[in-house]
Amino acid sequence: MVQPRILKGFRDYLPQDMLPRQRMLEVLERVFRDYGFLPLMTPALEYADVLLGKYGDEGDNLLYRFLDNGERDVALRYDLTVPLARVVAQYGDLSRPFRRYQMAPVWRAEKPGRGRFREFMQCDGDIIGSDDCIADAEVMQLGADMIAGLGVDNFAVRFNNRKVLSGLMSSIAVAEGEAEMGVLRTIDKLPKIGEDSTRKLLREENGLEEAQVDRVFEFLGLSGTTSELIREKLCGFFDDGSVGARGVEELGKVFDILCAAGLDSRVELDLSIARGLNYYTGTIYETFLTDLDGFGAVMSGGRYDGLIGVFTRQDVPGVGISLGIDRLLAGLRELGVVGEEPAPASVLVTIFDEDSVETSVALARRIRSAGVGCELYPQVAKLKKQLKYAERVGKRFAVIVGPDEAEKGVVQLKDLLTRTQDEVAMDDLAATVLTKVKGQSS
Amino acid sequence: MVQPRILKGFRDYLPQDMLPRQRMLEVLERVFRDYGFLPLMTPALEYADVLLGKYGDEGDNLLYRFLDNGERDVALRYDLTVPLARVVAQYGDLSRPFRRYQMAPVWRAEKPGRGRFREFMQCDGDIIGSDDCIADAEVMQLGADMIAGLGVDNFAVRFNNRKVLSGLMSSIAVAEGEAEMGVLRTIDKLPKIGEDSTRKLLREENGLEEAQVDRVFEFLGLSGTTSELIREKLCGFFDDGSVGARGVEELGKVFDILCAAGLDSRVELDLSIARGLNYYTGTIYETFLTDLDGFGAVMSGGRYDGLIGVFTRQDVPGVGISLGIDRLLAGLRELGVVGEEPAPASVLVTIFDEDSVETSVALARRIRSAGVGCELYPQVAKLKKQLKYAERVGKRFAVIVGPDEAEKGVVQLKDLLTRTQDEVAMDDLAATVLTKVKGQSS
Repeated sequence: MVQPRILKGFRDYLPQDMLPRQRMLEVLERVFRDYGFLPLMTPALEYADVLLGKYGDEGDNLLYRFLDNGERDVALRYDLTVPLARVVAQYGDLSRPFRRYQMAPVWRAEKPGRGRFREFMQCDGDIIGSDDCIADAEVMQLGADMIAGLGVDNFAVRFNNRKVLSGLMSSIAVAEGEAEMGVLRTIDKLPKIGEDSTRKLLREENGLEEAQVDRVFEFLGLSGTTSELIREKLCGFFDDGSVGARGVEELGKVFDILCAAGLDSRVELDLSIARGLNYYTGTIYETFLTDLDGFGAVMSGGRYDGLIGVFTRQDVPGVGISLGIDRLLAGLRELGVVGEEPAPASVLVTIFDEDSVETSVALARRIRSAGVGCELYPQVAKLKKQLKYAERVGKRFAVIVGPDEAEKGVVQLKDLLTRTQDEVAMDDLAATVLTKVKGQSS
Repeated sequence: MVQPRILKGFRDYLPQDMLPRQRMLEVLERVFRDYGFLPLMTPALEYADVLLGKYGDEGDNLLYRFLDNGERDVALRYDLTVPLARVVAQYGDLSRPFRRYQMAPVWRAEKPGRGRFREFMQCDGDIIGSDDCIADAEVMQLGADMIAGLGVDNFAVRFNNRKVLSGLMSSIAVAEGEAEMGVLRTIDKLPKIGEDSTRKLLREENGLEEAQVDRVFEFLGLSGTTSELIREKLCGFFDDGSVGARGVEELGKVFDILCAAGLDSRVELDLSIARGLNYYTGTIYETFLTDLDGFGAVMSGGRYDGLIGVFTRQDVPGVGISLGIDRLLAGLRELGVVGEEPAPASVLVTIFDEDSVETSVALARRIRSAGVGCELYPQVAKLKKQLKYAERVGKRFAVIVGPDEAEKGVVQLKDLLTRTQDEVAMDDLAATVLTKVKGQSS
């Protein structure tokens, strides 16, 4: 006998988890489509070299990578963005600007922990082929509409810009590439580990001098409204024409567009947002449920203008947003925005005995033909057991037809909630059930 | 630079493939729910021993199996049935009878070929916990309603029973287990390779004597209506009380129930249906689109009463149905039942110039607030280019607002189909667009 068990860091989603999750995915999909995003699907497995080197060394180590039966070096996808970049490079004839969404699992061999899993679903929307801040603001609006569409009142989109951070790094003479990314990944931990630990890591892991660390915290300590930060505080920080100054300009453009879209109160500049992935080059953002302290971001993303260039000589800019479905659902649960979902198919047709099987089958068929969801108990069993099952799985009505009823051409229609029972002519059953089910759902 | 390429046997689904596919999945999901099936999701990766030995040697060899970073022997799921059996054994508190559906990709390292892929989506429905033929008939009805719900008029559900085939094997002294499965897998090829090749394989690969092969073909050659076969022809074939006779009895019960459900004309007994997988123990079936000659089955399944017992001491019967999404969609395309899907979000708001960005952003926001799907062109670009894009991706309407319009508080609303253009006050735009889009979709 094989022990029935699941790999650590992986999950089974039983129906009570799946029903609200699917309801949520339906909302997200509707918003995607309302913004003109088109669905795309890519394989779970990719050539390893397609994925390697895009996420940083840490990411590379977390790949599920192996040799397949044909000795090909392959890996399970780590996110949905790199496969998208591969697709855009591979199919030159995709209409651009190209808006696509994808909701699919990704795999990372992380140490499993509270809220950290090795398989989890991402839900991504991206605009490919525009280097304009309009696209940045468009995906941020999309994200805001998703969170609002799910029934959340209080949330904040905190944004920043990698060019501003690169400008800061350049001003303290940290080299581009892995050195810079290392410092940014440390900064990204600030909200979780606090200033003292961050300073320590910057010195010990990233090898910064005290003066460099001070400069980083001078920058991170800038305060004021988003408008003040962009128009006043940040300007003095960078030389004209430098990468940092261009970043500040982009921040201003994105913020203006978001204000024009009426999102002033939702968005704020947060200079400590750095994002851990290598590929970002401009706008970056994270979204928080402000009623849940310390819950972490439920949605994040940014601009990655160099990523597609890894696969093609063409220069193709991109910007996107990614939702962590499971984190978000956990958050919605905590906020009380999602509860239990009712079971589908609210009618159970019971089987009275061996002789009445065909009568019950035919009745179930009639109810279904009337457009009412209906489950046939799939076995001859004690009626009590069948009714107990109906209640346990949340059915509202049960249809019972024994030999007496069959002879009279009627059935007993039991309302399991009100605990009442009506005798209904078989010929009227479908219509009666339809009326009752409609009344129930309105 | 990394060459953007995809693994052999894997596919990218671009939007034009995804839109009709998702429409199809929505129909299937609705029918599942109307039958009271509940959604379940299991991981892509399982411990290898959970999957091994359930599909036959051929299946075991086709597993994507590897050692993960923790040296665990793992494999990508090969189907959705074995993971379901694992779940049922692992979570003893699932209400039974348990009806679940799952629509998810599976992986098989097959030699890629026409219509054969290494990653493909399965769509499964199963009833766990009933050993009654009512359950067999219920999933067959479910399958028939799905195919009909997708708009197919002509299809046939061909069914058989593994016990009948086991009875046949026993009558020619073929041992249970791999020997029997080998013969059944050869028989399963009959429709594809014809009688002569099948006879040859039975002799040469399965080691049957000429007399045994003749007996197999005597059985396969039985002819008549389903009712005649069950009530007359098959009865003489098996001793009373033998496994074969029990199979014939089950065939009769299933057929009677399907007739009671009004499916007489849809179902027929086909003694050559054997199904290749090891785990079937009773009813088996395959569904064919009868207008497409030689297209092969689009839906199949059967009863597997021993499978869950691999994982638990409890005796838990099961029966299910599995649709191959991609085969089915290809079939629907060939039948002309699905065509092109219109692009979502039928309005494009253009960007006239750098100065009008915020006006366009605010207009897009207003249109969206009215509940109309709307895409904002994400870049300042020549108007002609934007309108060309709108036509290429199938937008119906384009909104244009330049400095003159902005001053007057109006926009140009262009109908890209009728090639007409109206001047509309900004304040009326959302309502006007809503009316036009509604008129278009009705």
